Amino acid sequence: MAAAAPVTPLDPARRDAVLAALAPRFGARLSTAAAIRDQHGRDESWHASAPPDAVVFAESVEDVQAVIRACAEHRVPVIPFGTGTSLEGHVAALRGGISLDVSRMNRILRLSPEDMDVTVEPGVTRKQLNAHLRDTGLFFPIDPGADASLGGMASTRASGTNAVRYGTMREAVLGLEVVLADGRLIRTARRARKSASGYDLTRLFVGAEGTLGVIVSVTLRLHGVPERIASAVCSFPDMKAAVSTVIDTIQAQVPLARIELLDEVQMDACNRYSKLSYPVAPTLFLEFHGTDAAVEEQIATVGAIADHHGGGSFAFAHAAEDRSRLWQARHEAYYAALALRPGCKGWPTDACVPISRLAECVLETKADLAEHGLLAPLVGHAGDGNFHLVFLVDPDNPDEMAAAAAANDRLVMRALAMDGTCSGEHGIGYGKMPFLVAEHGEALEVMRAVKRALDPDDIMNPGKIVATSGAAWPFNA
Amino acid sequence: MAAAAPVTPLDPARRDAVLAALAPRFGARLSTAAAIRDQHGRDESWHASAPPDAVVFAESVEDVQAVIRACAEHRVPVIPFGTGTSLEGHVAALRGGISLDVSRMNRILRLSPEDMDVTVEPGVTRKQLNAHLRDTGLFFPIDPGADASLGGMASTRASGTNAVRYGTMREAVLGLEVVLADGRLIRTARRARKSASGYDLTRLFVGAEGTLGVIVSVTLRLHGVPERIASAVCSFPDMKAAVSTVIDTIQAQVPLARIELLDEVQMDACNRYSKLSYPVAPTLFLEFHGTDAAVEEQIATVGAIADHHGGGSFAFAHAAEDRSRLWQARHEAYYAALALRPGCKGWPTDACVPISRLAECVLETKADLAEHGLLAPLVGHAGDGNFHLVFLVDPDNPDEMAAAAAANDRLVMRALAMDGTCSGEHGIGYGKMPFLVAEHGEALEVMRAVKRALDPDDIMNPGKIVATSGAAWPFNA
Repeated sequence: MAAAAPVTPLDPARRDAVLAALAPRFGARLSTAAAIRDQHGRDESWHASAPPDAVVFAESVEDVQAVIRACAEHRVPVIPFGTGTSLEGHVAALRGGISLDVSRMNRILRLSPEDMDVTVEPGVTRKQLNAHLRDTGLFFPIDPGADASLGGMASTRASGTNAVRYGTMREAVLGLEVVLADGRLIRTARRARKSASGYDLTRLFVGAEGTLGVIVSVTLRLHGVPERIASAVCSFPDMKAAVSTVIDTIQAQVPLARIELLDEVQMDACNRYSKLSYPVAPTLFLEFHGTDAAVEEQIATVGAIADHHGGGSFAFAHAAEDRSRLWQARHEAYYAALALRPGCKGWPTDACVPISRLAECVLETKADLAEHGLLAPLVGHAGDGNFHLVFLVDPDNPDEMAAAAAANDRLVMRALAMDGTCSGEHGIGYGKMPFLVAEHGEALEVMRAVKRALDPDDIMNPGKIVATSGAAWPFNA
Repeated sequence: MAAAAPVTPLDPARRDAVLAALAPRFGARLSTAAAIRDQHGRDESWHASAPPDAVVFAESVEDVQAVIRACAEHRVPVIPFGTGTSLEGHVAALRGGISLDVSRMNRILRLSPEDMDVTVEPGVTRKQLNAHLRDTGLFFPIDPGADASLGGMASTRASGTNAVRYGTMREAVLGLEVVLADGRLIRTARRARKSASGYDLTRLFVGAEGTLGVIVSVTLRLHGVPERIASAVCSFPDMKAAVSTVIDTIQAQVPLARIELLDEVQMDACNRYSKLSYPVAPTLFLEFHGTDAAVEEQIATVGAIADHHGGGSFAFAHAAEDRSRLWQARHEAYYAALALRPGCKGWPTDACVPISRLAECVLETKADLAEHGLLAPLVGHAGDGNFHLVFLVDPDNPDEMAAAAAANDRLVMRALAMDGTCSGEHGIGYGKMPFLVAEHGEALEVMRAVKRALDPDDIMNPGKIVATSGAAWPFNA
């Protein structure tokens, strides 16, 4: 997995033809500058950049349709690009082609406070949306580490710290508008909260990572800002005690908004980076949402469970600025991890297992890291059975990269053996494609059949999730 | 829509060939008796029976595979059958073929109280599952009117009175095992609560009504039985007041378990049928789940909202038997409606709109019924924006059937104009196919492409949702 991106360059004649077709419409919004191309072939992970042949900055649905129609005509790949904050090489132009940057499509199209839903263009980021909602009493809960675009979050089926209560993008998306591989525009669903009308195309495009079409609008469910929010931090004598607290809390059906697990390595990193002084021990970061009475009741229940497992007393943060400081530290965990080893690169990975297996999976994983001498802080959305490692690696050291790749393989196979998945929220890109046969077996052929049906020429983000043009991606053959 | 089922008989040579292929394996579990065939071509709605050529009673995954392989070889339709309680002609054998009855596949395969999930065979009914769970502290919330099979509920994306809190089958299904149109067996997902690993095949098969494959196991999320359950009934001076109470309650984010709307026609029917004496007025049936404190708080909030809209005081049912009596009346609403006009048939229909449009949609619909002199009690899962009518009709009176069909058309088009859907929970079958172009436009072509990709010979429940063999279903041509 640590190998360079498996790139097949685009046939130059086709590249020239598509650029000639696009230039009149897009002018300066079509760029072949090396720096722009390089930036658009790279995400936030360790994956090497695979630059596209050109970048188009779309500003409308019609722009997206024009790009896709030209690419379809000339059989040139189209790679949608939001903020470039993916983690498995999702935006890498593995066969060249056009990076379709939708970051300028960043308008809030409509908002219905009565229905608690909103429709946005795909380039709107989660923070931008929440800023827009500030005075409405509503908020959008899903918070991956980055300030990602909502089109990108839909495409990767993103989640974050709130998913244990509010769900992931799978639940948050009410409907999408999508431009298909031949340029047609569809709407996957209307705004009713539920529907039994035909195949669930919304969920088909959520998580498809741009391989079936390009999302041009996203309709999202919103939630009311709770009357009361309280955050707390609690340290535990060992990992098992912390995870057992999570399991018991979930089983007690406490409607926690957040229950985040950080191991002692990550806590050390956070203390150093965010200038905090928490015990260097397995720790839970918690957040409670509800009415005053409900929050008090939740705190009492979880406090008793934590106490039963030997947890320390809760360090509370009630005021908005204290809560913000606490969660800032959690959101900075990735950068804190990187700072543990200056000059290194982070290789983030994630897995997700049934919660009954979480303690076992985490403990075996940590033992494995220790055995192989790997530095990889662990953080987890523990309420979902989802956890992350960040391997701190030197990409120029092949032995180290091979060791991290092998540990990542073992992590995934361990999660699969526990009936889990190779990714809870980062997605597949090309980084996790090698695991899909083990995870999905024959079902992968169904994914491939769907891909072929909707993108017969394999122009939509080719080489991601399913490689319908074959393992060597002989698109140009 | 009131026309007879558009049946194209199966070519007799193909029928004989498939029966000869299946007879050795299935013996007496293969039936061509007229009564059995007729029963399997008919659901609980007014739709005429379209009997299959034969019925096979499957007892294992291998049985299902054997049937589908034989049908694939001879290009014979396969129509999965659970309890036959669908409402839009889902089980009608529009081109003949084999009804694949999975009701004997009724084992609970595994249960994990720790993970709060369960895996069942498709013939397990919702009541059977809850009986099995009785001593675990867990329950399965989704409750369509009928005691439907869980395979059928997954296939129709069913919901019910609890969906406002617990979601529909879309949210409840963690994963499926499905036999495809060529007999291959796939598993759509593992047991992790969330995953970003590839296309969401689970959601693709949920709601596909057997047109893409046959579900042979269902893994479901369960919920803890709440510490306290309280039910209440509240009458309102008019429909607008009742619906406004629903809207305000949803917006106040009260986590109600149920908020059901019944119009004055339905209340009159329920009073007569279930020997009750509620006011004959628009009425809400409510249920509150939670801790003691949470339930008290919810009741106070909703009570204040109802009071603000001129609702009467809550008539509470706290004891289990009183609650059971109340909800029994709600669940008997269909039979109560039928009893309003002895000898009639019920033509149930449903639509779902954004909640901000619910009052308008309900009021316009009731005015339309009055204008056309149609008797059709209204009940609704109002918290979801979903409501039902039951047209009480004489199927032998063509004028009356035409009037009901026209009112149904207007209901659907009214819901679509409000950005709603032609079915919130009953599904499409063949009864609502004519509305899919209006609802989905070009997206219907995407559904058709998916259908063609997974079932190229159109043998899986042909003529439902999308008719890939053409409008006249020339399967035998």
